[in-house]
Amino acid sequence: MDRITAHYFIETPYQVAKAAMILAGEQSSGTFVETPGETPALKQRFGARIENIELLESVNQPAIPGPKLSFDKYHRALVSISWSVENFGYNLPVLISTLQGNLYEITQFTGLKLMDIDFPASYVSNFQGPRFGIKGTRNLMGVASVSPMIGTIIKPSIGMDVATTASIVKTLLEAGIDFIKDDELMGSAANSPFDQRVDAIMKVIRTHADRTGKKVMYAFNISAEVDAMQRNYDKIVEQGGTCAMVSINSVGLAAVKKICDRGELAIHGHRNGWGMLNRHPLLGIEFKAYQKIWRLAGVDQIHVNGIKNKFWEADESVVRSIASCLDPLGKGMDVLPVVSSGQWGGQAFETYQKTKTTDLLYMAGGGIMAHPAGPTGGVRAIKQAWQAAIDGWDIQRTAEKYTEFAQSVEKFGKG
Amino acid sequence: MDRITAHYFIETPYQVAKAAMILAGEQSSGTFVETPGETPALKQRFGARIENIELLESVNQPAIPGPKLSFDKYHRALVSISWSVENFGYNLPVLISTLQGNLYEITQFTGLKLMDIDFPASYVSNFQGPRFGIKGTRNLMGVASVSPMIGTIIKPSIGMDVATTASIVKTLLEAGIDFIKDDELMGSAANSPFDQRVDAIMKVIRTHADRTGKKVMYAFNISAEVDAMQRNYDKIVEQGGTCAMVSINSVGLAAVKKICDRGELAIHGHRNGWGMLNRHPLLGIEFKAYQKIWRLAGVDQIHVNGIKNKFWEADESVVRSIASCLDPLGKGMDVLPVVSSGQWGGQAFETYQKTKTTDLLYMAGGGIMAHPAGPTGGVRAIKQAWQAAIDGWDIQRTAEKYTEFAQSVEKFGKG
Repeated sequence: MDRITAHYFIETPYQVAKAAMILAGEQSSGTFVETPGETPALKQRFGARIENIELLESVNQPAIPGPKLSFDKYHRALVSISWSVENFGYNLPVLISTLQGNLYEITQFTGLKLMDIDFPASYVSNFQGPRFGIKGTRNLMGVASVSPMIGTIIKPSIGMDVATTASIVKTLLEAGIDFIKDDELMGSAANSPFDQRVDAIMKVIRTHADRTGKKVMYAFNISAEVDAMQRNYDKIVEQGGTCAMVSINSVGLAAVKKICDRGELAIHGHRNGWGMLNRHPLLGIEFKAYQKIWRLAGVDQIHVNGIKNKFWEADESVVRSIASCLDPLGKGMDVLPVVSSGQWGGQAFETYQKTKTTDLLYMAGGGIMAHPAGPTGGVRAIKQAWQAAIDGWDIQRTAEKYTEFAQSVEKFGKG
Repeated sequence: MDRITAHYFIETPYQVAKAAMILAGEQSSGTFVETPGETPALKQRFGARIENIELLESVNQPAIPGPKLSFDKYHRALVSISWSVENFGYNLPVLISTLQGNLYEITQFTGLKLMDIDFPASYVSNFQGPRFGIKGTRNLMGVASVSPMIGTIIKPSIGMDVATTASIVKTLLEAGIDFIKDDELMGSAANSPFDQRVDAIMKVIRTHADRTGKKVMYAFNISAEVDAMQRNYDKIVEQGGTCAMVSINSVGLAAVKKICDRGELAIHGHRNGWGMLNRHPLLGIEFKAYQKIWRLAGVDQIHVNGIKNKFWEADESVVRSIASCLDPLGKGMDVLPVVSSGQWGGQAFETYQKTKTTDLLYMAGGGIMAHPAGPTGGVRAIKQAWQAAIDGWDIQRTAEKYTEFAQSVEKFGKG
């Protein structure tokens, strides 16, 4: 029977092999004493198996402080554990409870992070995965693969009324944007009820599409309870929209999958709350493992932060995240990396150098809206930067050639 | 307009007041430059507000290491921030994205934990909350409030076939148990398909109820995708069951609420994965805040770990968690604390001393199944321990009086 293998970065004051056995036991047949019925045949078929242990450094302080600890040395290691698919079938929540359940609670660990998951092809093929992914999103936006898709976020995040929002959308469409999204804080606020916002914005988008042939993608934040999300989804479909945004951590796996399964709209996966799951180097889950789960659920676009972002994440981590989205999980089951946070175009050069891809949704908020020449200047500056980056130019040469990009460098590049 | 206030434990190398302003800005109107439309009136109505700052100690090392940090001092503080209910309405996922969204990513913080949330009564009253809670669960089990409800977990967690499981259930019923649950690793395994398991177990439970008048509560693990969970739920209702278990973190908020809203079964909320959200003292969320969210969603029973548990959590934290479940969020909107992990009865004394409550579902796995006199002895020993604890006896006196409890002390009490 096929097996799923999870790779963990662990720290333990005990022998690594012993700690790994406790993990495998707890997550397959464990209790603190042997119980009747725990036969060798049962353990053989349903027991988790240690596939590999790679010892790393030892340290003097635990990565995560704990009340029950007092040891001289803490040993770090990479540990790979596998489970038979028979244990959980194609049930993602039970898979999560197995790979990321009580194991974070085990006293024997002073740090534990799920780094990656290997799924057998037979397992992946049981999931539809992203209905649109990179190619489908490009088709919906009408952006050829020679350049990234350029997007922006409506700011201020919350508080603007529907008419003001629609007028900003109109400005952005005229500026040549490919994609716009609600902020994750904006669901259905007092002065911007969801349905009214969709009506007003889609009217602007349809009018623009009729005139130019380009239907800009707008990711409306449908995040809510299940029935409300379905109604929100219906509303977008009814108005001719092409995308819905979901705060994947806040909504949760089962409801996100239910929404993705509909397959009529591209699903923009916002990972807000991610810092809680990943910020500590020895707790939680790495993006490489995380995005695979959401890809199986069917998310088409997922946030990866950006180079020189305003958040805590290091550039190397962002680069790894982008690479992991582009690695085909199954036949063509890719997910579009959404680059954002403090972006204004100046990061296009390094982003391209380090990722060598244009399969990105490149998002700038303030970098577009606060451009000295207005949003049109902001969009132009980013497109100029990306073309120059692809052509191998540097920031200085690009700023010398293009007025709008030079203005961006002047305003945003001095921070 | 009513406001919701969140209390955070933070650490920052910057001025605490400045860091708090960044948090409030990021989670209400933030971008890295001011944008048009960000008017004073809008900020006044929709902006997050700093309600209180309480400075704590300063330390020399950051709680969470970060690539962008190099400072001499890191200041800790309790910071309270409020938002108008107008920002998100009664939409729990958007509330979560606001209170627990991108703020964990903010570079200015080297630690951030959501400690508690104050909801105005008007907000709480918009949610049905737990349909059964403590009183309803007692009624379904037929256990009066003078003693805790005694429960157990089917072990081994995964791998047993349906007939064996049903025969163990029969043994446990005869032993006098009040509650039994699937393990969270057991959804619908190859040799224990969900429907067959429900059929076989409910037959045993109904037969026992017909004979004794006591219908033991069995929490079948319905965790799955939305439609599969609904089918699983239907199956339990059809077979006369009274409870469904959901792995709340793995399934996610929106789908859990959808299931709770049905209101025909008590919902047993399993918090596996919790360690990831709470284990670090300065990252994630405290149980006090966490359980309020799940209570609003309608979970009736929630795991709180146990005194002298086999996991990392300190006893004081368990005691705080139990107290937080019993604190009525709204009129009678309580949630039943589920005590488990390494329990065998010996912890009853300290549990009662420190919590002064019997409103607990007290779970023992190995402590019952591996009792020297069999499960009957295990259940008896735990009931003896609880009665003695309530009467103010100590372990020694209890062991002298009761044979079964003495056997438990002998087998489990020497660790």
